[in-house]
Order: sequence, then structure tokens, then C-alpha cells
Amino acid sequence: MTVIEKIRKKLQDENLDAYVIAYGNRYIGQDISSNEHKLSKLCGFTGSAGIAVVTKDSAYLLVDGRYELQAKQETEASEIVVVDLLPRLKNVCDLLKPLNVTNIGYDAWCHTVAEMEFIKRHFFDMKFFDAGDWLGANTKETIKIRQRDVAFSGQSSAEKIAVIKNMLKDQQAEYYLFTSADSVSWLMNIYAHDLPYSPVVRAYALVAKDGNTILYGDNLVTELSNGNWQDFTEKMANLGEVKLMYDAHIAPEKIKTMIDDKTKLIKAPDICQMLKAEKNPVEMQGMINCHIRDGVALSKFLCWLDENYRQKTELDVVKKLHSFRAEQKYFWGESFNTIAGFAQNGAVVHYQPNEKTNKVLDEGSLLLLDSGGQYLDGTTDVTRTIALGKPSKEMIRDFTLVLKAHVALASACFPIGTAGVKLDILARNKLWQRGLDYKHGTGHGVACFGNVHEGPISISTNSSDYGFKSNMITSDEPGIYKENEYGIRTENLLYTVESENSGFLKFNILTKVPIDKRLIDKYMLENGEQMWLNNYHQDVYESLAPYMNEKEKMWLKDVCSPL
Amino acid sequence: MTVIEKIRKKLQDENLDAYVIAYGNRYIGQDISSNEHKLSKLCGFTGSAGIAVVTKDSAYLLVDGRYELQAKQETEASEIVVVDLLPRLKNVCDLLKPLNVTNIGYDAWCHTVAEMEFIKRHFFDMKFFDAGDWLGANTKETIKIRQRDVAFSGQSSAEKIAVIKNMLKDQQAEYYLFTSADSVSWLMNIYAHDLPYSPVVRAYALVAKDGNTILYGDNLVTELSNGNWQDFTEKMANLGEVKLMYDAHIAPEKIKTMIDDKTKLIKAPDICQMLKAEKNPVEMQGMINCHIRDGVALSKFLCWLDENYRQKTELDVVKKLHSFRAEQKYFWGESFNTIAGFAQNGAVVHYQPNEKTNKVLDEGSLLLLDSGGQYLDGTTDVTRTIALGKPSKEMIRDFTLVLKAHVALASACFPIGTAGVKLDILARNKLWQRGLDYKHGTGHGVACFGNVHEGPISISTNSSDYGFKSNMITSDEPGIYKENEYGIRTENLLYTVESENSGFLKFNILTKVPIDKRLIDKYMLENGEQMWLNNYHQDVYESLAPYMNEKEKMWLKDVCSPL
Repeated sequence: MTVIEKIRKKLQDENLDAYVIAYGNRYIGQDISSNEHKLSKLCGFTGSAGIAVVTKDSAYLLVDGRYELQAKQETEASEIVVVDLLPRLKNVCDLLKPLNVTNIGYDAWCHTVAEMEFIKRHFFDMKFFDAGDWLGANTKETIKIRQRDVAFSGQSSAEKIAVIKNMLKDQQAEYYLFTSADSVSWLMNIYAHDLPYSPVVRAYALVAKDGNTILYGDNLVTELSNGNWQDFTEKMANLGEVKLMYDAHIAPEKIKTMIDDKTKLIKAPDICQMLKAEKNPVEMQGMINCHIRDGVALSKFLCWLDENYRQKTELDVVKKLHSFRAEQKYFWGESFNTIAGFAQNGAVVHYQPNEKTNKVLDEGSLLLLDSGGQYLDGTTDVTRTIALGKPSKEMIRDFTLVLKAHVALASACFPIGTAGVKLDILARNKLWQRGLDYKHGTGHGVACFGNVHEGPISISTNSSDYGFKSNMITSDEPGIYKENEYGIRTENLLYTVESENSGFLKFNILTKVPIDKRLIDKYMLENGEQMWLNNYHQDVYESLAPYMNEKEKMWLKDVCSPL
Repeated sequence: MTVIEKIRKKLQDENLDAYVIAYGNRYIGQDISSNEHKLSKLCGFTGSAGIAVVTKDSAYLLVDGRYELQAKQETEASEIVVVDLLPRLKNVCDLLKPLNVTNIGYDAWCHTVAEMEFIKRHFFDMKFFDAGDWLGANTKETIKIRQRDVAFSGQSSAEKIAVIKNMLKDQQAEYYLFTSADSVSWLMNIYAHDLPYSPVVRAYALVAKDGNTILYGDNLVTELSNGNWQDFTEKMANLGEVKLMYDAHIAPEKIKTMIDDKTKLIKAPDICQMLKAEKNPVEMQGMINCHIRDGVALSKFLCWLDENYRQKTELDVVKKLHSFRAEQKYFWGESFNTIAGFAQNGAVVHYQPNEKTNKVLDEGSLLLLDSGGQYLDGTTDVTRTIALGKPSKEMIRDFTLVLKAHVALASACFPIGTAGVKLDILARNKLWQRGLDYKHGTGHGVACFGNVHEGPISISTNSSDYGFKSNMITSDEPGIYKENEYGIRTENLLYTVESENSGFLKFNILTKVPIDKRLIDKYMLENGEQMWLNNYHQDVYESLAPYMNEKEKMWLKDVCSPL
């Protein structure tokens, strides 16, 4: 019996018409380990965003554009139908509407309060039942929690909690509940190695108005006050006549069902998300420092690759690049699964090589390499597209267009408070000129030794209205993907600084890795773009050369020479 | 007793705390004649957007950035306080909040249903009373309605009404009420000369499901079925058990109070606004044709100005330019009050010269000239900034920046359906680079022989999400304004066409008038920008030369020669 068939059996037993499977767990929006991947158990899909629904006679997997190709490949053996729709419960409901589905089972830990409020308002014909997790989430190993040094975090946990205390006082509330793992880790200055790519500790934090804070999670090993989920459930049910602040857009619906009527819930945005997006000077310096080390590792790798790519595979690339990063000071691990896509594999936006798909590198096509490191002092995320052998005219044209898009965003100046949704077009418009586009955002926020994707800022066609302030970090990563041919993406991390003009911000560049000049058509660049590239390469050379051996330094000098 | 004092007396008599004065009348959003300008009667402000409020001890005039300077100058003699806030009732309420104001009088004809719903939801401590018009709107002259020939409109009124009939059928509704003067004029193919700058007929139209349509207005002279406001009130009160469709964002609150409970109101966007934004082939050709005639008129004027500007005044400019336009075929009148601002007057964004402010033109500064014509086949709107004598380096720098911003928007390619709010930054970003900005939108929709400003599309930081389709017209008019020095704006009208890449739109240019090369720093332009300018000038020359005399042709050849 397939997993889908098992679910159908259970639908019958429980008298339900459909069952919804979310990607994540009670840490909504946070990464998961591969053994926690419910969608992969369901249908084989291994991407990091999606939602599925199984009814008596149909099964759908909703993924966004980034994962469309990959999802279709991975679910070939399954009967599930892949739909290119943003993976939201709302879109699942839209799909279910014409199917005459009334009683729907779901896991109330995996959907936010705000999401369920929206669903109940708009789909009043459908009834949702908290049916729990049918895919079998694994029992947790113990999680060893480590304390982050203030030399890295720049601010003590006590100072951060003091801000929360003030907010509670302002609102005359007794508690602030944080359910976002990255908020909790930032607030408490803690980290772990529970997840492969993120050092965050998966726990909730309940801050009382006197500053006392309790962590709740699975088998936490720490000297901080903590409890398990049984303790949490009891605590929530017995808060009494108090006010509890929480973020309805992050907190699971499950919590609302636990809390007694006497307790008053106050919706408030998770303030940690906003505070940690503005890096303090120590964090900013850490980010600058780790990007030099990361640039050294990646550039050493690129120098090695130029001579040694023949007969190597994508998985060899992943391994070799890891070895260069692992040599760097403060290295903790990769910040996400390295994307090394050669030729047509590069066109699968979030491709990660495995034994089945692994390609041998060869002349005449492109290697798309998107990778990053977690260091105790910061987080990196960088994409370079590298020509192996002689690239075609079309490859050069497309690479140059992507570069123009990248430079347009990196060169932007804008009033403090401008939202990323307005900046997105600066990059995208350069591709639109040629009728091209990419089905992903142009930029995402990045933590300092935390999640490589963090809110509240982002740069995309549908990102929020949250505006940029100083010392915020975003990626800049336009791309072009030619199905069955190749993929191109150029990604640097940028950070906002006040410009010489009062009231305006501009970007500085964190990432220091050469951009492949063999793929640039100089005659397609405007003067300003060419100048940007030459200045960038000069800075890359000066920053990295001191850490390279003689051979690598010669290579670096050549690839960083002016266009 | 000043008008404000009279209002305070009446506040006391009526037992009210405040009285709100909107700019317009029952044709919300439509232009007015100068004798209908309530704000001008109140405090001297003559701009074409604003809202005022008078309380027992204070008086505020809210205007947007375009009018800030002008409003302050014009209201100097009044005690009214000018506030740079979008002129919305919402913002008036925010100002009144701390003043302990409870009972507010307003004119229910001058505020939309949607606006009042919002106000009642957000300011439930305030009570609004329909107090009518205290500023004395003039009795109307009779309005002679003319029929627009299908040779100009491209579509008969019957064909347009057929679309409305279908909508009524779909919604199983009996009536569609149109309260927007430009919608009504477009739908009925009618025009008048009631307003100085807009040929629209100010009337409401009630379309019944069988297509029968009645016009309601002040003293209409027409063979079409029509009635006066008494008839309208009676009709609304006695519709019976039917469904009436209307646009709550355009229709006055007053109407809601007339309608009997038995009648069911259905909110629907005014479909005429959307339909008429997409010009049909006859309208598009008319727009192209009238822009050549308008370009001939304006270019003849510019040629004349170069030789004759000394000792002439701004008002001379307005008069002379009018005389050139008046010679053109199909000319009906200006499409708005000509803005001719020399030197510091150019910095007042919507400055219009009068006997008091009229400046003599002189060497060494700039003339900002924003004007347009109504022709039976279309509407124009064009701004050129002209150097008189030798311009300063700063003027050249600023003019070139504005040109770069203008070209960036004009050169955009974007997916069908992209909203103007996303395009705005393409222009603005070029000024942001130097810490500059302008306090007005970048573009507005333009009618074909109708309002020079029309919805639903616009290009600004806060415009709606309404997306561009083919054959829509927008202005492109970034600017730089240096208070007490000069103003610069360069404005062309553009229209959308499908690009060579499927699914994408690009702009073609309607306006054909030379851009002053004496104000361009060639070294600040990228290659693409210089090429744009040279191509534009070549097209201007080829389009206009056949209609110029020998002397004008030589001048045109020179000002259109490649940079």
C-alpha cells in the first residue's frame, strides 16, 4: 500500500473527505531535517516548500515556480499531481472547492492562527478538523544547547529581553510568547547543531513581564529554564486572567485551542524578527569578516576547478567546496544544501545533486553553484555561474543580462523605509527587456549565524511592505533558466548603509568572489555597469589576495583584472 | 466678516464642532469651473485638489506636495493653516482627533460611499451630519450637449451600452448607475463646453437592463432622455425591489441616503473606467494624429520663443502658445490651465501665472512649460523645460538627471498586467541616486478627448494595483524642483503596445516635441540613453518637418540633430 493509499484508508476511518499535509512542523517557516520531511514520505518531493492534499480520488502537491521541474521529476512514480501554485492552504482550498469536499483533516500545529482565520472567513463551506500528523514525525534526539558569546552576538540576552519587558509594560501585558525558532535563538543568544544547515535552537520562549523566560521544546539539554510540550500545554491552559502577546502570523492554531478563555490574546508582530533584521555593529563586522573567509574558500575552489573540472561530477564539486570552507576559522557547516547544477541541471532552480541525478562536468556548458557557510560570526550565501570550456553566444548574452540585473539592484539608492516589493523591478526589468524572467524572488533577508533566509524584508514581486533600514542584509540573485539547457544566477549578499544624501540608503557588498568574465559581453554593458564590475573585482582581489598561495594569487589577479 | 468667520457663526447656529469643505461637487474627481471653487472662496487657494476643515478655533487646508508652496503663497492673507497631507477626509479626521471634535458637518454629495464607510469604521467617536454646501455653489447655465461622431469615438454608444446590458444580465440586476462624468460622456459619445479644459458632460447616467438610459444633470440641453436632480431623487427613491449596480468608490454618499430599503445595492467597479482606458484603434489613431498637430504647434512656439523671449512675460507665453494651438485642426481648447513658470515660479509644481505672479523672462534661468490641447480626435499633455540664455552647471546636471529618469520609464518592458506602482521606481531611482525626489506621481492615464487625468491606471509610489494592458496611455513626467531657484520637468505621453516578446508590453511615444539639448550633459548619459534621445529627435523631425515653414524647419533640424 502506498502512503497515499494509507491516507485514503484513514480518511474513510475518520470520516473525512481530505487530509492536508504541510511541509513543516510546529516551527512554522523553519527548516526541517530530512527525516522530518512529510512531503518526501508522501510522494518523494524533497524541496523545502510545498503543501499537499489527498482526497478520496485525487492528490495534489502545490509548489512554487522554483520547485516545479524538480517536483515533477521527483514525484514521477507517485500518482500525485504537481501544481505550480504558491504552497498556501488558501490555494489548496481553491483546488478543493469544485471537488465537493467538506470535512478536511489537518495538523493544527502546522498552520498559523492568521492563516486559519483567513481560511474560516473565506471558505465557510469547509470544515477543518485537527487530525494531527499522519505521516509520523520522528521522535527527537536530545538537543544540546550552546550559549553564543557576546563577542559574536554584540548584545547580551538580558539586554534583548529588556526590550521585550518594555513592550509588555507598554501593552500592560503579562507574557510575550515567541514561537519562531530563529527569534528564540536570537533572543536567548543560543545555538545548536540539531538541523543540518541552521544553528537555531528549535524551541518556543515564554517571556514574563519580570523578564523570566522559559524555553519549551523536545528534549532540550540546557541550564536555562525549560519544559517539554506537556509542560507547555499545561502552562498555556493555566495562564489565568492575564494578557498574552503573540504573533498570529507565526504562532500555530494549535496554541489558540489550548488557551483558557480567561486569558486575553493580544496580536502583535514578533518584535524579535524586526530587531534582529537590523544588525548591530558587532554582527555587521562579523558578517564582513566571515565573507572574506568564505570568499577565500570559494575562490580557492574556483581556481582548483578551472584546472581540474574534467571527469569530476557535481557531487565531487560539493565535496571539494566543502573541504575549502571547512578549513576556515569559525566554520560551523553549510548554510544550506549546496546547489551544484551542471548544464540542464542548472535550470532546476533549487536543484541539489544526488547519486541518481549526478552529472559529469564537461566542456561547453555552465555550472551553477549556489552555496553558503555558517560561521560563528556570520552567515554567507553566494551563487556563481562558471563557464566550463567555451560558452555559446546565447550563454554569454544571458549571463550578461543577469549581471546587468544584479548590478541594477546592487547600485540602487532609495529613501529609508522603501519596501523590497518596489526594488524588485530594478533587477527584473533588465530581463523583461528581452522577454525573460525568473520564477523566484530577487532577494531575501539573511541572519547573522542563523537562518540563511530570514524576514521581515525581502525583494520580490509579492513581498511585504516592510521597509529597509540601515544595516539590513539582503541577497541580490536574479537568474535565467533555460529548461533542458542551463541555468544562470549571480548572487551576492548586500547590506544597507546610509548614503551621502540624508534620508537615503544604498547597498554595500558583503560577498567577495570573482564573477566569471568569460561569460560577459562587454558591449552589452553600459559604462556604469562596466565600472561597477571593475571596482568590484579590484575590491575582491585586494580583500582575498593576502590569504591565497602564489598560484591562486596569480589566478585571482587574472580573473579580477579590469574588463 | 471673513468666510471662515461666517462658517464659525454657522457652526454655532447648527450646533456643530467642525465643517468640512471638499474641493469638488457631486461629480467627485471631476474638474470644476473657477466659480465653483469652494476652497478658493474659503481661503484663496486655487489649486485643483485639496480639502479644508473649519473648527471653532482652527482651520486647516490639506494639500499634497504638488500644491504645498502654492497653497502657502495663496493663503497668506487667510488664517488657514496649510498642511502637506494627502487631501482625504481620513487625514482631516486624524487632524481633528486631538481637538476633541465630535459633531462634524459635511456635504454628502462630495464624499463617496466607500470613503464614508471607511470613516465610520475608523473614527467611530465622530458623528457626521449632512449639512449641505455652505460656500454657495453657483446656479448652472444650460449645458448644450453635442454628439461625438463615431469617426472619432470608434465605437457607437449602442455598442458600449450593449456591454453594460451584458453585465446587468450576468449579475441579474436591473440598473447600472454611472456617476462619473467622464464615464457617462464616453458611454454616450457626448461632449460639451461646460468646463474650460475638459469636454466631458457633467451628468449621471442610469442604464436599465433593456439598454434604456436616462441622463441626470443641471439644465441639460439634449435630445437624449434626461432629467434634473429632482427627477433623480424621485427615481432613486422609487426604484422598488430591484438590484442597482454602482461604484461605491465614485458614487456620493448622498445617493445611498436617497434609495429605498427595498432596492438592493450591488457594489461594482465602474466598468466604463476600465473599458475607456483601453483605447480602440480609431481612438489610438486619433491620439497619434493630434499629437503631430500639437507637436507642430508647440515646436513652432519654441522656435518663436528662442528669438523672442526677451521682455516677454509668462502670460505672453501662455497667450502665444495658445495662438499656435488654436490654428490646428480639430482644436477644442487647452486640456488644462497652461503652466508657464520662469525661474523660481517653475519650482511651484502646479504653478499657473496670473497678473500678480507674472514674471518677465530673462537670461540665465529656465522656463518650465506644461500644457496640452483638447482636439476632437484626442488629448495632449506635454512638458518641456527650456533654457533661456546660458544655463548653470547645476541646471544642466538636474535636467540630465530628469531626462535619465524619463528615458528609464519610457524604455521599460514589462509583463502584461504589471501595475504602475511597480514601474514608478524606474524613473524615480535615477534621482534617488543623487538624493533627489519629486513630490508627485510619475505618470497618469489620459483620455482620448476627455479628462487629461483619467483612471484607473497611474504610475506613482501609491497608485493602485490595476495593471497595464495594450493601448493604454500614460504620461511620463519626472521632475526636479529647487525652491526659489527653478523647476525642471520633462513629460511625454506614452502608450502601451505588445513587445516582440510574447506576454510583454513596451511603450511607444505619442508626444513629438524636441527636448532642449542645451540642457543635456552628454557625459552623464549611458549609451542607451543617448541613442534613445537621438532616435526620438529623428522621429520628431521627420514627423513635424512637413508642417513647418522654411525657417522653422531649419530650427527644427538643428534642435533635433544627434547629440
